[in-house]
Amino acid sequence: MTKSALQIARAAYQPKLPKALRGAVKASEGEPTQSVADQHAIKELFPNTYGMPIVKFVESDQKVEYPAINVGVILSGGQAPGGHNVISGIFDGVKKLNPDSKLYGFILGPGGLVDHNYMELTADIIDEYRNTGGFDMIGSGRTKLETTDQFEKGLKIIRELGIKAIVIIGGDDSNTNACVLAEYYAAKKYGVQVIGCPKTIDGDLKNEMIETSFGFDTACKVYSEVIGNIQRDCNSARKYWHFIKLMGRSASHIALECALQVQPNVCIVSEEVEAKNMSLDDVVTYVANSVAARAAQGKNFGTVLIPEGLIEFIPAMKALISELNDFLASNAEEFSHIKKSHQRDYIISKLSKVNAEIYASLPEGVARQLTLDRDPHGNVQVSLIETEKLLAEMVGNKLAEWKEQGKFVGKFASQVHFFGYEGRCAAPSNYDADYCYSLGYAASALIANGKTGYMSSIRNTTAPADQWIAGGVPITMMMNMEKRHGEMKPVIQKALVKLDGKPFQAFAAKRDEWAINTDYVYPGPIQYFGPTEVCDQPTKTLQLEQSK
Amino acid sequence: MTKSALQIARAAYQPKLPKALRGAVKASEGEPTQSVADQHAIKELFPNTYGMPIVKFVESDQKVEYPAINVGVILSGGQAPGGHNVISGIFDGVKKLNPDSKLYGFILGPGGLVDHNYMELTADIIDEYRNTGGFDMIGSGRTKLETTDQFEKGLKIIRELGIKAIVIIGGDDSNTNACVLAEYYAAKKYGVQVIGCPKTIDGDLKNEMIETSFGFDTACKVYSEVIGNIQRDCNSARKYWHFIKLMGRSASHIALECALQVQPNVCIVSEEVEAKNMSLDDVVTYVANSVAARAAQGKNFGTVLIPEGLIEFIPAMKALISELNDFLASNAEEFSHIKKSHQRDYIISKLSKVNAEIYASLPEGVARQLTLDRDPHGNVQVSLIETEKLLAEMVGNKLAEWKEQGKFVGKFASQVHFFGYEGRCAAPSNYDADYCYSLGYAASALIANGKTGYMSSIRNTTAPADQWIAGGVPITMMMNMEKRHGEMKPVIQKALVKLDGKPFQAFAAKRDEWAINTDYVYPGPIQYFGPTEVCDQPTKTLQLEQSK
Repeated sequence: MTKSALQIARAAYQPKLPKALRGAVKASEGEPTQSVADQHAIKELFPNTYGMPIVKFVESDQKVEYPAINVGVILSGGQAPGGHNVISGIFDGVKKLNPDSKLYGFILGPGGLVDHNYMELTADIIDEYRNTGGFDMIGSGRTKLETTDQFEKGLKIIRELGIKAIVIIGGDDSNTNACVLAEYYAAKKYGVQVIGCPKTIDGDLKNEMIETSFGFDTACKVYSEVIGNIQRDCNSARKYWHFIKLMGRSASHIALECALQVQPNVCIVSEEVEAKNMSLDDVVTYVANSVAARAAQGKNFGTVLIPEGLIEFIPAMKALISELNDFLASNAEEFSHIKKSHQRDYIISKLSKVNAEIYASLPEGVARQLTLDRDPHGNVQVSLIETEKLLAEMVGNKLAEWKEQGKFVGKFASQVHFFGYEGRCAAPSNYDADYCYSLGYAASALIANGKTGYMSSIRNTTAPADQWIAGGVPITMMMNMEKRHGEMKPVIQKALVKLDGKPFQAFAAKRDEWAINTDYVYPGPIQYFGPTEVCDQPTKTLQLEQSK
Repeated sequence: MTKSALQIARAAYQPKLPKALRGAVKASEGEPTQSVADQHAIKELFPNTYGMPIVKFVESDQKVEYPAINVGVILSGGQAPGGHNVISGIFDGVKKLNPDSKLYGFILGPGGLVDHNYMELTADIIDEYRNTGGFDMIGSGRTKLETTDQFEKGLKIIRELGIKAIVIIGGDDSNTNACVLAEYYAAKKYGVQVIGCPKTIDGDLKNEMIETSFGFDTACKVYSEVIGNIQRDCNSARKYWHFIKLMGRSASHIALECALQVQPNVCIVSEEVEAKNMSLDDVVTYVANSVAARAAQGKNFGTVLIPEGLIEFIPAMKALISELNDFLASNAEEFSHIKKSHQRDYIISKLSKVNAEIYASLPEGVARQLTLDRDPHGNVQVSLIETEKLLAEMVGNKLAEWKEQGKFVGKFASQVHFFGYEGRCAAPSNYDADYCYSLGYAASALIANGKTGYMSSIRNTTAPADQWIAGGVPITMMMNMEKRHGEMKPVIQKALVKLDGKPFQAFAAKRDEWAINTDYVYPGPIQYFGPTEVCDQPTKTLQLEQSK
């Protein structure tokens, strides 16, 4: 592998660890815990892993002798910066327990466990990947570990390799499944522990005990770098409105964090759109108002941040999509005979009045996407809708109307962008490098202490690493019951943007100024070697959430 | 203006200067020069600014007293990282000559000179913008300075402000116009000097005396950062081919430099496509071959870099576009009555056989773009064609054919990206910060020495800044005569990628390996504070060009 100069220099970085994990470690246990809701149902489903105490690691003066242990690690779901550091943290952790310990990586995600596809992760492999981005050391995958058949197949290779514990690095669903697996192995008394690690760049896996999921910090900084660059261009050329879509289908944390970092003219927050029951036209009008207000000051340029999941948060769009899904499913045969050029009118004639009106208001391309591109289940593929183009076009149409009515006197031209892949595999920031390494290290300590069904937890991360608190949280503690595909399931509660939370409030307090003024901030690229205020700051979201 | 932590830390950076510019400066003049071609014609057009010697600045032990001078500066054309540093270099340079000197910035490009739209650039303004990206200090614009009417209008404000010299920071066309202006003012004996500075992130303004144009270094590094991140994702998820379009309409330097930095599976170089008279199908087949070869090894993922200008370099596409332009211009009325759904067939029936076949082979969306979206002159807007989508779609079609024929056994799914605005206003790398500051400083020395019609020149920039050579090059020396809008015009020769040059040769020597293997390099973000091998490397292109 040819390495870049930065990669070589960065390989030497020694991630910081919480003080408690550096020497001999002792587990201090709290009171029994409860799930966030539906306690009775969750307890019934997880008799062996429910109610366990929160674990906190503290410094100890007693060095304990540990036998060598074999551990397996799995990367589950989408890439997030820092995954390799979790793995190297586990590696260093189990080697410290006993130098004869071994770490196995299952290849291409949970499927690797089921299909017995693995590799031993030796020191020379680990050293190649310290502080790098990506999940390419062992690859990731989206196979869901859900069935006892999978669990039993996994057990075979676990037994064959003498594995004592599996660490699953993933998002909310993967950690839910980690707990199901932990419960299954515990119920069967197989003596195999399962530990989870909180990963998602979307930032929607967090709660009282899990301050943030790893990768969110780095990804937001990469997006903010390029958005800042676009804003500087925007403010230099002074002729375009840039519509920038950002990752975040089920929550808008990324858009909000980037907004706090770059101070754009407009940032849409899906959770607010839903809470206020805004229509698509309301959103378009909101953006168009900022365009018009700036145009009145001679500023025919600006920036708009849009979370990827917006369309699905607009109640009226959700209703339209739902009716479309039902209608097309039961009329697929008839629809397939309608000529392309007549499809739009046909659909409009068949929908309920309110949905027909919304459908008719959509730009042609989007309307076409909604009816033509459906997934194998016949459902509209909302993720294919280019929301950034949709908004830019509809704002343009709205402004053209206003121009005729004399309500808009400026010019409007737009550019669109979508950032996702650009940040998911960036090399981790110092924050994520330290946080991930500590998560992995804490996972090894949970294993050493015989824990299962726990998520590795590092808290107080806005303080210097010295003061970080390492431990583990029972995964059941984060669960409630939710309807999934028509069935009630135990799942980890997704963390949406809280409209009464400090990050959103900080944004809301400023956005009216930002909408009119040009208050852009240009964060620039992630730095690894400079002054600490440049290199070591957590996200604004986390800083605000942790502020007293 | 709210500043990011990096911006604040970076403001303190003192750009390096060539040794000769640090103390008292003496101009050493060489032999008379000639234009690169069409000497007779150029000499006749530029009697006052033709044949001037190359100027090299050398250290001097004699401190000369200079009177205070007023200088005007103009940013012309697209943004490029480092523009603010050119301006701060001029500012520090003229202030060193005499602290009472003044610098005026003309607002929003050359139009600011014609319309008398300006501001004085005082120390506090300059200090706000040192080492920052963007052109937002005074803005830029695309007005072309071409007519005597403009020159005379400009003279009025020049006289009013007591300006002795104008510095025009721009690309090849802007520098050509700077020279036309210099010649005009010299011919009229107005006593106003005009100096040019070489800017273009596309990298197509360079020659023997101008090693590189500023901004190319930074922009390529930003693009390589995000491409590297995408490649890491690609190699982690192992399921997509990413088609990445990069800036560079008239030359492929950016795509080539990024390829040298990130080692993608495929990089198209427009100049080669033209030289080999490749058809669109040839290009598609070339990419599809790499996809098929990797699929045969089980690798259903990869990356393809595409220069923005590709379509216009494909001779057959050029011929098609030319026929389309002519046909649509003379049949606009008839065409406007053709129903949308019949336009494609109509066009095919009207084109010559060879062009009709090419047109018929294009994906529907592109065909539509070619006939619907035309500029005010009725011409096809080639720049609107989403070449990355076009190629991804056509490669997919080709592979589907091959699959039926049993020639392709893998999977193919694609993602598309276009990077342009992300890099044009990035904060300058150390290289660009130093280079730009030195260019500005040298411009002030050219003014002090009474020069006009010169371009500021800094050479030997792959050596430490200590050894950089500062001076000036007569702009006429870089000119030849070319046909523009049907007329022969004196212009600076555009530097295309040379197929026998070292950068392309280095790429060509490796690309067959890169096509099959996964040799990705992940450069990571620009660093400002780390080890010199991380922070201070010039582009691979320049290093190869300057290597013996």
